Amino acid sequence: MAPAGGPVRELLRVAAPVDLPGIDPRSTPGLPGAEVTGEHRKAWARAQVELVGSELGQQQEMLFAMAKADSYRPAHRVLLVLQAMDCGGKDGTIKRVAGAMNPLGLHIRSFGPPTAQELRHDFLWRIRRALPPPGYVGMFNRSHYEDVLIARVGSLVPEATWRARYDEINSFERELVEGGVTLVKVMLHISYAEQGERLLERLTDPRKHWKYNPSDVDSRARWDDYQAAYAEALSRCGTDAAPWFVVPADRKWYRDWAVAHLLRETFDTLDLGYPPADFDVARERERLRAGGAVTDETAEMNGR
Amino acid sequence: MAPAGGPVRELLRVAAPVDLPGIDPRSTPGLPGAEVTGEHRKAWARAQVELVGSELGQQQEMLFAMAKADSYRPAHRVLLVLQAMDCGGKDGTIKRVAGAMNPLGLHIRSFGPPTAQELRHDFLWRIRRALPPPGYVGMFNRSHYEDVLIARVGSLVPEATWRARYDEINSFERELVEGGVTLVKVMLHISYAEQGERLLERLTDPRKHWKYNPSDVDSRARWDDYQAAYAEALSRCGTDAAPWFVVPADRKWYRDWAVAHLLRETFDTLDLGYPPADFDVARERERLRAGGAVTDETAEMNGR
Repeated sequence: MAPAGGPVRELLRVAAPVDLPGIDPRSTPGLPGAEVTGEHRKAWARAQVELVGSELGQQQEMLFAMAKADSYRPAHRVLLVLQAMDCGGKDGTIKRVAGAMNPLGLHIRSFGPPTAQELRHDFLWRIRRALPPPGYVGMFNRSHYEDVLIARVGSLVPEATWRARYDEINSFERELVEGGVTLVKVMLHISYAEQGERLLERLTDPRKHWKYNPSDVDSRARWDDYQAAYAEALSRCGTDAAPWFVVPADRKWYRDWAVAHLLRETFDTLDLGYPPADFDVARERERLRAGGAVTDETAEMNGR
Repeated sequence: MAPAGGPVRELLRVAAPVDLPGIDPRSTPGLPGAEVTGEHRKAWARAQVELVGSELGQQQEMLFAMAKADSYRPAHRVLLVLQAMDCGGKDGTIKRVAGAMNPLGLHIRSFGPPTAQELRHDFLWRIRRALPPPGYVGMFNRSHYEDVLIARVGSLVPEATWRARYDEINSFERELVEGGVTLVKVMLHISYAEQGERLLERLTDPRKHWKYNPSDVDSRARWDDYQAAYAEALSRCGTDAAPWFVVPADRKWYRDWAVAHLLRETFDTLDLGYPPADFDVARERERLRAGGAVTDETAEMNGR
C-alpha cells in the first residue's frame, strides 16, 4: 500500500534551515491511517516492511545484474546513510529493513571511533574504502557525518577544521553521485525522553548491558548541542543531489516502515531492468541438450 | 524441531575417502519425517529455516557482544564456506539462511575469477583479506577451494602447484581455528540432471539470462573431472579441526534446512553468553535519573 499524502521522499525531506524541534518524533508522516488504526498499525507496518523488503530484493537483483552486464560505465549503487543519537535505532533499522532484503547484495558497514591508522588520514579516507561495490546496496551505520557531530560537540578537532568539512562533504557526495551512487541520508529522530527510556532498558536487561556505555550519558548531557550540530549538518549538506531525510523514530515500527519506503521510492527512480543476454540463447540451448539429461519437457514439468 | 537420527553435523560429515556418487542428491538426511510428510515437507522446512534463523540471530548477538567485551583474546568467529557446481544453489542458500539471520553481524564475500592483482599474490592472499572480523559470522560464496577445483580441472596452474595446495589449505585452516574461527565447510551436492534443468531454466527465463554463462556448459562437460576434484579436496582437507559436510541439494528446501541446522549446531558448541557489565549498573542508573525524563516506572510501562 502506497504512503498517504504523497511519497515519503517528499514528506520526510528537510530543507535549510532545518527545524528539528518542529518535527515530532512520535509522528507518522505518510502512514496510511484511515484503513489501519489503533493496535493494528504496528503489526500492519511490520508486515509492510517484509513486503516492501521482498520487492526491494528483486530490485537489488536487477541492480546487480545491470552492474555485471556493463562493466565499462559507472554502475548504479544505492547507499543508505543512517545517523542518530545513541539508542536512535540504527541497528534495529538495519536488522528489520536489511533483514527483509537479499543479504547477498548488501554491503553494511559500521563506523566506530576512528582507529589510530584512520586518524592519520583525512576523515573521508575510511569512508571511501567502505563504499559499496557496483551493483550493491550499501548501508552505513554512522558515517562521515560523525566528523561534524561528535567531532564538533566533543571538540575533537579545532573549529576551523570541522567548519570546513561541510563543503568537503558536499564535494565528496557530488563526486559519489556523479559516479553512480544514489545517496539516501536518513536521520532517525528520537526524543530526549525516549532516549532516556531506551538507555534505562539497557541498564535493566543484563542481555543489553553490552550495548551500554557510560559515555552515552555524557553525550546525553549535551543533547541540545548535538541537536544543533545535527540541524546545521542537515541544513548545510542537504542538497538536491544528496538530500537529507528526517524519520520520526520514537515508534520503531513507523521508523522501519518509513526507511523501507524511502529505499523503495529511491529504487523506483533508477529505471532498473534485467539486461539482455549477451550470448545466443538458441545456440546455448542446443549445446545444453547435446550434453544430455535435459529436455524442455523436464524443465517445464519442474515445479520449483 | 531437532533433526532426526542425531545431529546433522554427524549425519552430513564426510570422511576420507569421500564417495560422492554414493550420496543421493535427492536424499534428506536428518529431516524429521514421521510427523511431516508429502507436500507439507517443503513448507514446513522453509518455516523451520525462519525459526532457526531467528535463534541464530540471538546467538550472533552473543558472539558479537563477547567479541566487543574482550578485545585482548582471539575472538570467536564462525565462517561458513559454500562450494558447489554451477547452479548448485550457493546464492539461494545465502539468500534463505542469511536472510533469516541478523544482517548486521554477517560478513558475506563472493569469490569470482581472481583479478590481475590477486593473481600476483599467493592463492590465500585474497581469502585472508576477506575473513570475518571478530564477532561476525562470515559466509564465503566459493573460496580457496576453487584453487584445487577449477584450477585443477582447467589446468590453470601446473599439477605440482595445485597438488601442494591441499597441505597449504590444511595449514591455513589450522591457523584460522587457532585464531578462534570455527569453520563450517559445506559442499552443496546436486545431480547432473538437476544442473541441466537449472541451466535450462536460466536460458528459458529472460530474468535469469544474466546468471547464465556459456562457460557453464564447458564446465558441465567436465562433470566427472570436477566430481573427482571435489572428492579429493574433501578427502584431503576434511580434518577434525575443520570438517567437510556434504549437503544433498537437489531439493532446495532440504538444502536450506540442513545448512541452517549445521550452523545452529555449530553455534551450540561455542558456549556463548552475554558478557557481564564492565561498569557499575546502580551508579549509571543514578546518573541517568539525574538527567531527568526517566523513571523506572516509565521503563516498565513501556511495552516495546
